Amino acid sequence: MNKNKIKALQDVLHTDIPLTKHIGIIVRELTDTSLSLYAPLENNINHKYTAFGGSIYSVSVLSGWGLIYSLIQQHNLTGHIVIQESNTKFIKPVTTDINSRCSFESTEQCDKFLKMYKRKGIARIQLQANITCADENAVIFNGTYVVHT
Amino acid sequence: MNKNKIKALQDVLHTDIPLTKHIGIIVRELTDTSLSLYAPLENNINHKYTAFGGSIYSVSVLSGWGLIYSLIQQHNLTGHIVIQESNTKFIKPVTTDINSRCSFESTEQCDKFLKMYKRKGIARIQLQANITCADENAVIFNGTYVVHT
Repeated sequence: MNKNKIKALQDVLHTDIPLTKHIGIIVRELTDTSLSLYAPLENNINHKYTAFGGSIYSVSVLSGWGLIYSLIQQHNLTGHIVIQESNTKFIKPVTTDINSRCSFESTEQCDKFLKMYKRKGIARIQLQANITCADENAVIFNGTYVVHT
Repeated sequence: MNKNKIKALQDVLHTDIPLTKHIGIIVRELTDTSLSLYAPLENNINHKYTAFGGSIYSVSVLSGWGLIYSLIQQHNLTGHIVIQESNTKFIKPVTTDINSRCSFESTEQCDKFLKMYKRKGIARIQLQANITCADENAVIFNGTYVVHT
């Protein structure tokens, strides 16, 4: 069941945003509260043999996007998910493949977001994605997403 | 002369960061104080027929990177240019090809940056890149870059 959901999300990403195939994005893990995306360093390398910032950003922003996409699907809702603002801190170079993980802050955050979306047809949610490299935080992405009908 | 500089910078981008070829990045204009990059919507489309946020970010971050690269080259310097932090505001969807323009704030900003870099071997600079769509600001990118020997 979860394997199907993972495949469905990956197909959505590759079909809807063709560049994700070049980035090599793979959905690694999807739970009710978190999403992990992966992309190989090889596709996203720069001249310093580290991951290109634009690739890291792409994987990060999509880990938030995909998490919201899965949440609203799970609640039999549809909507447009748009990134409104983001802050990205590059703490250290990503010298490995890109692994991004985005989680909801809490079940309260999810519930509040869903309640607002059902009532108003528009809701805002802030999510953090972390890119780790050798078990340390390498990049911290904070994004504000808007979902509307 | 300037045509050569434009070609040289585009070659650097395509060679050093292979993903930029898939994004379709083209150097449009390069002066002593500004850099304009372009990428076709087709390569960077999402399911809403607008430009993918990760692509917009990539073009934006590279317009700052390329501007610094050109500046230090012009002063016969070398160095590693790294993005340290960025804030990206998505004001409206980019429904056209991606056009990003990054300029130095002032000649004072350039002079201060170069002076610091020559003295310390490390310097920080904040740059803004603007993505316009139908002559209106669609995305505003603010990045802090660090250059070190």
